[in-house]
Order: sequence, then C-alpha cells, then structure tokens
Amino acid sequence: MSKNKKHLRKAYTSPGSLIYVGKESREKVEVKSIRFNESVIEEQTLQKPFPMPAAGSSFVHWVNVSGLHDVKLMENLGKAFQFHPLLMEDVLNTYSKARMEHFGDRHIFVMLKMLRWNAQARETDAEHVALVLGENYVVSFQEAGRSDVFSPVEERLKTSVGKTRRGKSDYLFYTLCDVIVDSYYLLLEDFSEKLEETELRVIENPGAVEQKTLYALRRELLTIRKAVSPLREIFSTLTRDDSPLIHESTDIYFRDIYDHVLQVLEIIDSYREMIENIQNIYLNNLSHKMNAVMKTLTVFTAIFMPLTFIVGIYGMNFENMPELRQPNGYFYTLGGMALLGLGLWIYFKWKKYM
Amino acid sequence: MSKNKKHLRKAYTSPGSLIYVGKESREKVEVKSIRFNESVIEEQTLQKPFPMPAAGSSFVHWVNVSGLHDVKLMENLGKAFQFHPLLMEDVLNTYSKARMEHFGDRHIFVMLKMLRWNAQARETDAEHVALVLGENYVVSFQEAGRSDVFSPVEERLKTSVGKTRRGKSDYLFYTLCDVIVDSYYLLLEDFSEKLEETELRVIENPGAVEQKTLYALRRELLTIRKAVSPLREIFSTLTRDDSPLIHESTDIYFRDIYDHVLQVLEIIDSYREMIENIQNIYLNNLSHKMNAVMKTLTVFTAIFMPLTFIVGIYGMNFENMPELRQPNGYFYTLGGMALLGLGLWIYFKWKKYM
Amino acid sequence: MSKNKKHLRKAYTSPGSLIYVGKESREKVEVKSIRFNESVIEEQTLQKPFPMPAAGSSFVHWVNVSGLHDVKLMENLGKAFQFHPLLMEDVLNTYSKARMEHFGDRHIFVMLKMLRWNAQARETDAEHVALVLGENYVVSFQEAGRSDVFSPVEERLKTSVGKTRRGKSDYLFYTLCDVIVDSYYLLLEDFSEKLEETELRVIENPGAVEQKTLYALRRELLTIRKAVSPLREIFSTLTRDDSPLIHESTDIYFRDIYDHVLQVLEIIDSYREMIENIQNIYLNNLSHKMNAVMKTLTVFTAIFMPLTFIVGIYGMNFENMPELRQPNGYFYTLGGMALLGLGLWIYFKWKKYM
Amino acid sequence: MSKNKKHLRKAYTSPGSLIYVGKESREKVEVKSIRFNESVIEEQTLQKPFPMPAAGSSFVHWVNVSGLHDVKLMENLGKAFQFHPLLMEDVLNTYSKARMEHFGDRHIFVMLKMLRWNAQARETDAEHVALVLGENYVVSFQEAGRSDVFSPVEERLKTSVGKTRRGKSDYLFYTLCDVIVDSYYLLLEDFSEKLEETELRVIENPGAVEQKTLYALRRELLTIRKAVSPLREIFSTLTRDDSPLIHESTDIYFRDIYDHVLQVLEIIDSYREMIENIQNIYLNNLSHKMNAVMKTLTVFTAIFMPLTFIVGIYGMNFENMPELRQPNGYFYTLGGMALLGLGLWIYFKWKKYM
Amino acid sequence: MSKNKKHLRKAYTSPGSLIYVGKESREKVEVKSIRFNESVIEEQTLQKPFPMPAAGSSFVHWVNVSGLHDVKLMENLGKAFQFHPLLMEDVLNTYSKARMEHFGDRHIFVMLKMLRWNAQARETDAEHVALVLGENYVVSFQEAGRSDVFSPVEERLKTSVGKTRRGKSDYLFYTLCDVIVDSYYLLLEDFSEKLEETELRVIENPGAVEQKTLYALRRELLTIRKAVSPLREIFSTLTRDDSPLIHESTDIYFRDIYDHVLQVLEIIDSYREMIENIQNIYLNNLSHKMNAVMKTLTVFTAIFMPLTFIVGIYGMNFENMPELRQPNGYFYTLGGMALLGLGLWIYFKWKKYM
Repeated sequence: MSKNKKHLRKAYTSPGSLIYVGKESREKVEVKSIRFNESVIEEQTLQKPFPMPAAGSSFVHWVNVSGLHDVKLMENLGKAFQFHPLLMEDVLNTYSKARMEHFGDRHIFVMLKMLRWNAQARETDAEHVALVLGENYVVSFQEAGRSDVFSPVEERLKTSVGKTRRGKSDYLFYTLCDVIVDSYYLLLEDFSEKLEETELRVIENPGAVEQKTLYALRRELLTIRKAVSPLREIFSTLTRDDSPLIHESTDIYFRDIYDHVLQVLEIIDSYREMIENIQNIYLNNLSHKMNAVMKTLTVFTAIFMPLTFIVGIYGMNFENMPELRQPNGYFYTLGGMALLGLGLWIYFKWKKYM
Repeated sequence: MSKNKKHLRKAYTSPGSLIYVGKESREKVEVKSIRFNESVIEEQTLQKPFPMPAAGSSFVHWVNVSGLHDVKLMENLGKAFQFHPLLMEDVLNTYSKARMEHFGDRHIFVMLKMLRWNAQARETDAEHVALVLGENYVVSFQEAGRSDVFSPVEERLKTSVGKTRRGKSDYLFYTLCDVIVDSYYLLLEDFSEKLEETELRVIENPGAVEQKTLYALRRELLTIRKAVSPLREIFSTLTRDDSPLIHESTDIYFRDIYDHVLQVLEIIDSYREMIENIQNIYLNNLSHKMNAVMKTLTVFTAIFMPLTFIVGIYGMNFENMPELRQPNGYFYTLGGMALLGLGLWIYFKWKKYM
Repeated sequence: MSKNKKHLRKAYTSPGSLIYVGKESREKVEVKSIRFNESVIEEQTLQKPFPMPAAGSSFVHWVNVSGLHDVKLMENLGKAFQFHPLLMEDVLNTYSKARMEHFGDRHIFVMLKMLRWNAQARETDAEHVALVLGENYVVSFQEAGRSDVFSPVEERLKTSVGKTRRGKSDYLFYTLCDVIVDSYYLLLEDFSEKLEETELRVIENPGAVEQKTLYALRRELLTIRKAVSPLREIFSTLTRDDSPLIHESTDIYFRDIYDHVLQVLEIIDSYREMIENIQNIYLNNLSHKMNAVMKTLTVFTAIFMPLTFIVGIYGMNFENMPELRQPNGYFYTLGGMALLGLGLWIYFKWKKYM
Repeated sequence: MSKNKKHLRKAYTSPGSLIYVGKESREKVEVKSIRFNESVIEEQTLQKPFPMPAAGSSFVHWVNVSGLHDVKLMENLGKAFQFHPLLMEDVLNTYSKARMEHFGDRHIFVMLKMLRWNAQARETDAEHVALVLGENYVVSFQEAGRSDVFSPVEERLKTSVGKTRRGKSDYLFYTLCDVIVDSYYLLLEDFSEKLEETELRVIENPGAVEQKTLYALRRELLTIRKAVSPLREIFSTLTRDDSPLIHESTDIYFRDIYDHVLQVLEIIDSYREMIENIQNIYLNNLSHKMNAVMKTLTVFTAIFMPLTFIVGIYGMNFENMPELRQPNGYFYTLGGMALLGLGLWIYFKWKKYM
Repeated sequence: MSKNKKHLRKAYTSPGSLIYVGKESREKVEVKSIRFNESVIEEQTLQKPFPMPAAGSSFVHWVNVSGLHDVKLMENLGKAFQFHPLLMEDVLNTYSKARMEHFGDRHIFVMLKMLRWNAQARETDAEHVALVLGENYVVSFQEAGRSDVFSPVEERLKTSVGKTRRGKSDYLFYTLCDVIVDSYYLLLEDFSEKLEETELRVIENPGAVEQKTLYALRRELLTIRKAVSPLREIFSTLTRDDSPLIHESTDIYFRDIYDHVLQVLEIIDSYREMIENIQNIYLNNLSHKMNAVMKTLTVFTAIFMPLTFIVGIYGMNFENMPELRQPNGYFYTLGGMALLGLGLWIYFKWKKYM
C-alpha cells in the first residue's frame, strides 16, 4: 500500500516527459550488454553514448539495465535506441501496471511485475520489469538495489549452448518473459504452504488463527492477482501476434507462457476460494463456541437459581415457619434440592445443553 | 446524493431544448479564447457574437467556457460553432454521465467528470466538463464557481513551447482529457491514505472505527467509479477512431489515456476489495468481543452461583442444622468454598474461557 | 406480485389467438386519431371500421388507443392496420415484458412499461404501453383507467410547432418513447428521496428503520429494473436500425434515448448498492447494540455477584463466626465491599465494557 | 435429487449403444400416429414395423411415443425413421439436459423438460420430452406413466381447423415446443402463490416460517431454472435457423417462444431475488428477537441484582448493625429499594431496553 | 493440496527441457501397443527403439504408456514419434492443467484429468492423462501405480467388433476422451449420495453435521470443477476443428462429449448451490438454537430473580418487621411468590419465550 501512497503517477505534467516514479535509490545504474550467437558470447558494460546494435547483425544483443532512477542516462539510452517517448515514460514509472504495446513494427514493449516474497516486510514485493524487443536486440529494464531477476538466463546463456543461444532475439525475449512467469509458481508454492498451515490450524484448533493471518493471506493474494491478471491479455496478444519481430516458430512458446498464466490465475482463484472457506469455518466455529458458552451459562444459572431461591425461603425470619422446627427439615430440604438439581441436570443433558 | 435529488433531468420537455440543469450560479460566464501555434500565443476574452475560427487557419483555437448557466449565451455559442442541439442539451445538463458522441465528421464531443475532494462537505465533488473537438479548435465547457480545471494546461502553453504548442487541435484535445484523468490519480492517492489509516486503526484497535467511516469510504469509491467507468469505453473508442479529426499519430496518446483509465479502474477495484476486507475484520472483531464478554459473564456466574447457594444453605434457619454447631464449621465451609471456587476457576481457565 | 398471480400468460391456447391478459376494466375503449403536419393539426375520435392512413399521405397520423380489454375492437383495429397476429397478441398481454420486434419493413413494434408511483398501494405500478411505427403513422396502445401517458406530447403538438410537428412519423415515435424514459427519471427522483431519508435515519438513529422499509425499497427497485433493463437492447437495436421506417437523421435521437437508458440503469445500480450499504449499517448496528446490552449485563452481574456472595457469608448462622462479634465488623465489611465493587467497576471501565 | 442418484448416465459403455436410463416402468409403450392436413385428420396406433411417412406426402405426420423403456421397440423405430444412433441414445436417457442438435438437413432434434408439480412428493417433476422434426413429420417422445403432455394440441387439432392444421410440420413442431414452455408459466404461477404466502407470513409474523420452507422454495426454483436455462440457446438457435426443415415464415414463431423463455428466466431471477430478500428479513428478525430477549434478561438482572444485594446486607448477622435497631429501618430500606428499582427501570426505559 | 506443495512447475529451467514433475515411482514404465482394424487386433509390449507406425498403414495403432517418471524412455519415445519438445514437457508435468494444443497438422494433443475417489485419503485424486492423436495412431500417457484408466476400451476392442474397431484413429481418440468424461459421472453420483446424506442429516437433526463435512464436500467439488472446467473449451474447439486428423463424421461425437461436459458442469454448479443452501440451513439452525438457549436463560433468570429478592427481604434482620410476626405471614408470602412466579411464567409463555 505504501507504494501507492506517494505518487501513483506524476499528475499534471506534459505527457511523454521523463520523470522517475518509484523508490529513491543512490546506486549507480548499470547497463550491461551481452551479445551472442551460437558460437560466441561477449559481455560488456555499456557507457554513454549507447551504441544501437547494427541492423542486420548476426548477433543477438541483450542490453540489461539495472536501475531506473538516473533520468538523464535513461533519456540518452532511449534516444540511442529510438524509443518512443511514451515508452520511456512507462519504463520510468515503476507503479504502472503490466501491459504491452506495439510501437509500429520497430518495437514490442512489455511491462511485467516480478514478484518476490519480502521476508522483512512480510509482504510480496512487486518489482517493475520492462522489456523491449527490437529487430536483433532485447533491452531489459529492472529496478536497482535488488538481486538480478534475469541471472538464471544469463547463466544459462554463458554455460551451455541451448535453444536460447541458437535462437533469435524473439526467443530471448520469450525466455526473459518465461523467467518472470516462473517466479509466480515459486511464489504460489510458498503461499500454498502458508495456506495449508493456516487451514490445518483452523480445522484442528479453530480458535488459534487470528483474523490478521487470514487478512494478510487475502491481501497477498490480491497483490499477486493484480500483477498476474493483465498478463492474460498480454500473452494472448503475443500468441496471435503477426508483427515481423516475432517469428512464427516462436508463437508456440508464447502460447506456452499463455497457458502457464492461465494456470497461475486458476491457482490464484482456487486459493481465494480456499481462504473464503477457511474464513467460513472460522466464523462458524466462533458461533459454535458462543453457543457452547451460552449453554454453560444457562445450565449454571438454571440449576442454581431455583436452589438459591429455596435456601432463601428457609432463610426468612418469619416467626411461624413450621418446617424450620421439624427435626429433619434441614435434611429433607437438602435432599429435595439434590433431587431438583439432579433433575435439572438430566433435563439439560437430554436437551443437549452439555 | 443531493445532486440527484432535484432534477436528474428535466422530464417531459421537447428533446433538444436548451435548459440548464445544475447548481444555480450568479457568476458571470467567462468565454476565453486562446489561439496559438508554435511561435505565437494570443489570449482574448470573447464577446457575443462568437466568431468561429476560420477553416484552414494555421492556429489552434482553444475556447474555454467557465459557467454553463447562461442559457442565452450558450445558445448563441452553439449556433456560432454550429453544434447539434443535442450536444448543447448535454453540455447544459451537469448531471448527465460521462460519454462520447460523434456528430458526423465535424465534431467529436466528450463529457467527463472532474473529481475533486470537497473538504467542506467531506465528499468528492464531480464537476461537469465537456469538450468539443473541431477541425482546428477545441471548445471546453466547465461549471462556474470553481477553480479552473485546465489552468495547468494553460500555463504550460504559455510558458514553454512543448508538444502541445507544436501539435494540432487533436493533441490539445488529448491534453485536456489527460488533465482530467490525472486528477483521478491525485484523488485516489488521498483516498488511499484515508483507507490505510482506517485499515491500521481497525487492525490495531478494532473497536475504534465507526461504521460511518467505512460507509463514507465505500460511498466515495462509488462516486469515483461512477465517474470513471464510462471512460473505459470512451477512450477505447477514441483509440480506434478513424474520424478525420484525430490524426493517426495521436492515436497512441489516446491509447495511453486508455491504459491509465484501466489502471485507475483496477486501483478502484482493489480499494473496494480492501474495504470489504476491513469490513470483515471489523465484524469478526465484533463477534470476537461478544464472545469474550459472554465468557466473562459465564465465568462470573458459574463461579459465584454455587458459592452463593452454599452460603444460602448455612443461612437457613432450621433449628436442627448440626454443621452450624460445629466449632470450626464456619472455617471448613470457607475453605470448601475457596476450593470449589478455585476448582471452577481452573476449569474455566483450562477451557480457555479466560 | 399480485399481478403475476393470476395469469402470467394464458397457457395452452393456440398461438396468435387474441386474449386480453390484464386487469379487468369496464371503461369504454377510446381510439383517438391526431393527424398533423407543420401547418395543420386535426383530432378525431375513431369509430369502427378503422381507416388506415393512406400511403403517401403528407400527414403524420397518430392513433392513440386507451384501453386494451375490448378484444373485438382490437381485432378490427389489427386487421385495419394489417398487424401480424403475434403483434396483437403481445399488445393484449399486459404482463409481457418490454421488447421490440420488426415485422418486415412494414412495422416496428415496441412494448414498454410506463412506471408510476401508486400512492395508494404504496408501490410502483408498471403500465403496459405498446407502440407501432408504420410508414406515416404511429399507433400507441395503453391500458384503460389511468391518466393518459402521452398527454404532454399531445399538448406540445397542439400548442407549438416544434420539432415533432415538423418531423416524420419516426420522430413522433421517438418522442413517445422519450416520454416513457423520462418518466423513469421522475420515479427515480422520488425513489432517491425515500432512499436518502432512510439513509439519514439509519445513520443517525440506527434502530429506527424497520426491515420492512428496506425490503420495500429493494422490491421497488427490483420492479423498476425489471421494466428498464430490456430497454438497453431495444434502443441499442433502434440506434443501429437500418429499417426504411427510421430515417438516418433520427438515429441520433434514439442514441440519445439509449444513453438515457444506460444512465437510468447506472443510477439503479448505484441505488442498489446504497441499499446494500444501508442494510449493512443496520445489521452492524444491531450487532453493536447486542454487544452493548451484553456488556451491561456482564458488568451488573460481575459486580453484584461477588458482593451478594459476601453478604451471604455473613448471613450464615454458624455459632462460631468471630467476625460477627467484632464491633466494627459490619463497617469493615461494608467498606471492603465498596472497595471490591469500585475495583471491579474500574476494571470493566478499563476493559471498555462501559 | 433421487433421480441423479442412481445413474446419471451409463458410464463406460460404447457410445451410441441404446440403453434406457430412467424410471423403471412396466406399462406398454404406445406409439400413436396422427396424420392431418387442412381437410382430413386420421389417428392410428402404430405397430411394428413402423412405416416412415412417404417423402412428398401432403399430410403432416405426428408420431407420438409414450414410454421410452422398451429399448427393442425404440431401436426399430429409430431405424425406421433413420435416426442417428446418438439421437436415439439421448432420447432414451431421461436424465440428459435440454438441448438441440441438427443431424444434417434431415432431422432437427430437441430435448425439453416438461415441468409439473408433483403434489405427492411435494416437489417439481421434470419429465423428459424429445421432439424430432423431419421433412413432413414430427416424432415426439415422452415418458410412460404420466398424463399426456401434448393432449391440448391433439384436442385442438381434432376439434378445429386452426393454424396448426393449416401449417406444415415445422408449425406443429413449434406448437409442441410452445406447450412445454407454456407449462412453465403455469408452474411459476403456482410457485408465485407459494412465495407470496411465505412472504406475507414472514413479514407479519417473522418467526412462523421455518427454514425448511425457504429451502424447499429455493430448491424448487433451482429445478425449474435448470430445466429452462438451456432453452435460451435452443430457441435462439432455432430463431436464426436456416435449415430447410424450418420455413422462414415460422421463424417469427420461434422468436416468440424465445421471448417467452427470456421472460420465464427473468421471472425466475426475480423470484430468486425475492427468496433472498425473505431470507434476509427472516435472519434479521431472528437477530432482532435475540436482541429483545437479551434486553429482557439484562433488565431483570440489572434491576434485581442490586436489590438482592441490599437485602443481603441486612440479612447479615453482625452483632453491631445500627440500622437494624432503627425502628423504621425496615421501611426506609424498602422505600430506598423501591426508589432504586424505579430509577433503574426508568434508566433502561430511557436507553430503549424495554 | 499436498500435490501443489512441492513443485507446481520446475521453475527457471530452459523451456522444453524434459523434467518429470509428479509423484515419485519405482515401477517399470510399460509401453503397450495395440494395433487393430476391423478384422485383426494385435497387442505387443514395445521396447526401445520405438517404431513409429508407418504412414498409410491400414491399421489403427494405439500406444498406451503407463508411467511417466522414466525421463530417458520418454525422450526416446518423443523422438520416435517426432513430438514437439513442449508437448513432451507437458506430458511429464503431471500438475499441469487440462488443455489442448495443435502441433501443426501432425498432432492434436489433449491433456485431461482422470478423477477417482481415493477412499484411503478420503479425497478425490486427479490423475494426469495425456493423449496424442496422429495420422493413424493415438498415443496415450498415464501415471504409474494406478489401475489402468483405459481398460474398458481395451476390453471392448478385444471382445467385440464395434464402432471403435471399425473406426479410424480419431474415433479411438474420441473413445478414450469419452472414458475420462464418463468417469466424472460416476464420481458425481458418489458425490451426490454424500451430499444427499448430509442434506438429510442437516434437515432432520441440524446440529449433527460438522463444519468439516461441509468443508470437505466443498473442497472436493472444487477439485472436480478445476479438472472439468477447462474441458468446455477443449471439446468446443475439437467440435469445430478443421484439422485433417479429425474427419467430419467424427465431429458429432465430439459435440456429444461437449454436451456431456456442459451437463457435468451444470451438475457441479447445482451441487455447489445445494452445499450453499445446506450451509445456510446449518447456520440458521445455529442461530435458532442460540435463541432458544437465550430464552431459557432469560426465563429462569426473570422468574427466580424477583422471587429470590422477596425471600431476601424477609431474611433481613431488622428488629421491627411487622410481617414477620404475622402468624400466617410465611404462608401469605409463599402464596404471593407462587402467584408472581406463575404470572411471570404465563407472561413468557405468551411472549413465546417457551
């Protein structure tokens, strides 16, 4: 929530003007370029001015930008790659939602949310990730000060000559998207464990779970769904895309991601329904307990009130109370009260009050 | 609500007849014209008769009307610009909902709601704003007696030669729409703060929030959603528009607004769900407290009822009550009652009643 | 409800057979014909046989039928105008829902519900209104025994030469539809007042509103929505209609009605949500009050039970009770009990029981 | 429910194999054939082998089969009329849902549910009815042991030369469908009466309605909706059908049925909402009563506890209790207690506890 | 749930790499091949290398793989049949949801969930089943260690020359799908019995059903719906499929499955609603009982409190209490109290507290 608080968007500024909207950071922005083909892979840290990969180059170029807060640098980079101003504006707004945009036949632009469990804040962090697919290059943007989202891909590229090394830029683009979607599975596995634990606790010892736990679970799921739900359309579009930037042979891979997104959304929905069910059990248990408490109260009251009344009678100070003078009056009274108490006790037992 | 109260619409009048429906006002209606191109900008207050910008003029003309209650003036203006009677009828009805209409290839007409937090009435005010895009002009209408909605645009136009100064009338039209949509972000930021505050208060001290607060939040959100939800279709249509009034290069900017509208709607939905959750926590806490109260009651009753019964027994006035004559009977009884009370106390402790 | 009770539809009869389904009436059915053009307007009460307006007549003919229960007359009228049997069947069934039907290029048939607040029965009445648009005529049907739905149009026609007088039959047709839709605004304004009043009462003095009020509001809204919701499709279809009976220049007027219908539906939805909210406040208040009652009970019980127990102790009749013989025992006991009572009182004050 | 219990479908059998799934019956299956044109009508009970009506015959043939449990006979009939095996499989499965199927241009196959209130079982019975439209014949199937669903049509055919007699097989087909849909109106009228009665009882004397009544109403509505909801698509398809079996002039009649289905569905929805509302009133009344009970309890407790405490005080046996020796102590105490009791009573009256 | 726990999907691996995701198993993977035509049927256990059926062979080949955990073997098989790597990846992931994929015109790939009630774990097991349709062969995959899903088909093939034996590979493909969908009916019949039993118990003796039962039912239904709901689209697509692998004459059979899937989904929905209703009855009963308990408590309290107060009065030790000295004071008091008690009893009887 705190993220939404300060600047959901810089309002009242000229559209297309570059303004960083996100967490402050003092880290240096790193621009790393990896270019590779099946036989060669080269890594290099880019400096201003940023060279745009030559059209027709046989290499696939991957430019990975870590840190978005250096607006000047971003502007240069955007100009070097001839990005549309609106594209750069979205890259710099870390609070904008996941979406896709075609900029003519030159660029396909995708913004996603990398989700990671933040153990300190005890909530799920959504990191802003932006990808631009060009003819023979992919530019990826991520926020500074976090572990590199794409390191598994980088490692794979360097260590083995797999499909990605043999593929074109669109396959690299797909691989980067795939890493993000994979992260949702990991997150949901963690979530599922928390959910199961809560479920067990509720079923076995219904009073033990606090509302806050359920609320936190529901809120986390809300965060995840917010990040994932726009992906349905993004990848549905990419699957049917006829842009020259995505080759037909890559379509099936985007369909694969699309199916994964659908599955993630379904899992989210079923978790949601489970939370609902747990909530219901919890509430019913509360009612049940209340009922039990009331019954206890009623039994105690209903048994002892008449008895107390009886002893009250014989505590009266009337001069003429014949029973009091009976030698065994006391014992008869005690006996009568025992019988009455027992009778009431049996009655409530029979009415299932105990 | 009070707005809907008096005249949702003037019923049973001939369609297309000009009748002002809205708050009464005595302020003078101001009609300001700004015409500009990349090099020049001129401002002027228009007087009757209103001159329509010459077709083919290289200037972009922006006519801004503040105040809608002068029906005579409105009629003249509408005739000068050759607006369709239904267009003017909608402009004058400040309670009509946001919508868009093409009037042939001559005019694109958009009605929006400017939302502002009214600190006095402690509710969100929805101001009626209407925009008409013509060949080389934009006419904007707003209610009187409020601060100028479009002043940021005016300022930007005058101080710097940015995109708007270089653009055509459709870009100005887009800029004015953008200002309105931006205002929703500001409003939602305020709303988010109120929501967070309420949330914290509910979680930390559940009894503190009154129903009225939640009701007010829910109602405000309802107002906002009502203003924003028609915009989804309006800007979706403008994005795909093939009217000659909107150049193809401007389409991407309307797509940008469209995405912002979607994001605003998503934020509204998530806020709504959060209010729902807070409401649930609140209710559960109420149940929880009730439960606690009942337990307290039960424990007190169940411990003291038997004890009171016992002391009642020895308060009876039977002549023959052997225990009474026992020298230590009193102390034995006290001890027994202490044991019984302790036993019951431990029992309820064990049953988690305390 | 009572309306649905008797005959939702005459079942098991041959389709297309004319049977009146509705409230019994003994009033005479009145068939009034108004024919007009820009310069002349003539009114006449029609008698059997009903003359169909000559094709190509320069007049617009409006035949208004008040009362549907005279099946014989209806049959003659239907034959005179060459209406399809299914059309007449629907006209006579006052319980059929609002809908539209094209009968080839000859007739456009629309059934609507006129809604009026029935102050006597304290519920909203839905009156059956049917309109048939022909080449140069409009036939309107309404139930007998109520005030004329279309009198505002008639008056307007007679008193001034406005758009309707200058228009064709399709514009008259539109005007008649517009009157019906306008009536919903009036009804909703009344409804809104009742809703506001209820809302205020609930918020200020939550116990004051009875369930029945909310139930009646919800039910009335249900009636209204049932009448209005089919109109969305009817006017959406008429807007896009390419029947020769509706000229292109009239399309924009049907789009106007369509937008009004959408707005009415939106208002209905928001009222519905408000009722929901009021209901929630009401229920929460009930819970709150219950809680308060329980706390009062608990405080009284928990303070007086121990005290009563103590006085019970010193009411026991043991021979050897040293305290009793203490000269100030009574006062010490009174003081102790005061302290205990005060302590408990402070404790419950601190626990927010009071 | 019991219907679903045994065999929702015979599983694991070869598709297209004829197996009767439904209630056991020992009645003889009756196959009745009625052939008619405008001038002649002939009835005959068919025996094996079943003759298929000659193509090009000027008669309309209606073959009505009562009883589906004779699989052998069914198989012969299916072969005689050259029905697709899947068609016959569906005819024999009385638990399959309502649906429509084209078998090329030869047969249009419709399964419907005839709904009848079963007074004995106190629930709505859904009877399986299947109709096949061929070139110049209609074959109708219904379950044995019930009154003939189509007797009104048969009677109409025999007694008068109406539209059905003059029509083709598609009009007969329409008439048979119409009878089924008409039956829903009758059923809903009954339902509406039960609903109204329940509603009145709840509003006037809220405790009187048992949960079971509401549950039964809800369940019956569920049964009806389950039978009716597939009809929306069936008749929507038939309306737009371009099969040579349905002439264009009959389309409008199917549109009529379609509209009736829509109305039935709307009525069902509104009844559902009414049940929901009644349920809410019921629950709120329960809460209200609970509240009243609690208040009574609290008032009794809060008034008598302090009084009992006071009398307890003067029941103590301290030797030195000055008040006891006051000649009018007793009367002062009684008076004090009367005042206290009255004060508390006024207090609770003022707090609206009584 | 436990299934989702460990590996919803292997994350961060190169796409298309074969990794088994599912339950560990040590059983040998069995690859059985059945080839048949109308006259001959031959069975054989396949060994590596797997021969792909010759194109144009007049036999239909059915290769059934039981056990998916032998990745090496799977890879060989995939290569032999020239399956796309993504296809094999999905086959090996037993947690992926049901879906369909075309791999060009060569393969139609369908993944389904076989549902079986697991009596031991007391929950529904979803087994992963994958089917690949090729030109003249079908390859079916199922998990190891369970009874063969397709044994009914195998048996039918061997024992009789039915439609499947005479059909092409697409008909075999359909038959295998049909077996899976049939299994849902069996499962729902079991479910229906459990549901009915629960319903009866709730209605007759509302306290008897524990929340856990309802929760388990709801959860089981969730599992079933999750498995079935994707089938709606799968078979809708297959019905309209124009792949050369599915002949037009088979389309109607897929439409048949499609209708069964729709029916299953409808049954699931109605069961869901019934659980909801049972839940409501249960909760209302809880409230009702609470109400009854409260009334009992109130009646006891309200009757005995005043009486106890009265006897307390005459237990006071004032020296001057004239009543005490009255010879019949005691009996008058007893009588008065009896009258008071009776009066209160009648009062509460009249207020329906008992």
